[in-house]
Amino acid sequence: MWQVKPIGYVRYRKEVVAPKEVGPRDRYPFPELVEIHVDPAYREALLGVEHCSHLLVLYWLHLIPREHAWQGHRYGDPTQPLLGSFATRSPYRPNPIGVTEVRLILRKDNILTVAGLDAFPDTPVLDIKGISGQ
Amino acid sequence: MWQVKPIGYVRYRKEVVAPKEVGPRDRYPFPELVEIHVDPAYREALLGVEHCSHLLVLYWLHLIPREHAWQGHRYGDPTQPLLGSFATRSPYRPNPIGVTEVRLILRKDNILTVAGLDAFPDTPVLDIKGISGQ
Repeated sequence: MWQVKPIGYVRYRKEVVAPKEVGPRDRYPFPELVEIHVDPAYREALLGVEHCSHLLVLYWLHLIPREHAWQGHRYGDPTQPLLGSFATRSPYRPNPIGVTEVRLILRKDNILTVAGLDAFPDTPVLDIKGISGQ
Repeated sequence: MWQVKPIGYVRYRKEVVAPKEVGPRDRYPFPELVEIHVDPAYREALLGVEHCSHLLVLYWLHLIPREHAWQGHRYGDPTQPLLGSFATRSPYRPNPIGVTEVRLILRKDNILTVAGLDAFPDTPVLDIKGISGQ
């Protein structure tokens, strides 16, 4: 067992309304652009990140119930095949860590505006890996 | 703070000699094929994984010293630009989690043979996400 800690949080811009619904849908109505507010304690780790075109973002699926079967039907649809969590992107996992490749739109000090991060507001971010543009 | 736990471990096949060296190199001499031995307690989470052509593997960088600056030069080469950990794939990170896309070669019960996982023997695996072939 090891401990992980947030290095920042997903924040929505004021003008964006958070999705209210969690349900069996292909894609929740996440906004195109969200912000990652990196803890200023890790500011030095951001050096040069503005040169990256894309980032791999790891985050803690903090809204997912921890007790759950490790098998399920896609979209909760029983006509879909039953699959184990390791065969899918299901959020029900022994270690509930999400990974998404996003596009970096803007860095302003410790705030990164990114496109394509399907995460709810206040999702804890565990890691950011620059994956191109170096 | 949250706890993560191993769901399995990287194992080398007997005929493969583990790389002995950790140093500033472009690529360590990792074997092309390694095995992931998934804890039998999570066998149900593997249902259908054999239909995936590729997997995203998350693993704990267990050999990396935890106290380290969050900036460095690529390959330890001071002629390379100084970059923060979040701008790179450096293993020195606040949460030392590696992410690699691998090709699934074979599933045999709870043992997955994969190609392209640059990880030392006994690396704890945190998560496996099937990313294609569904």
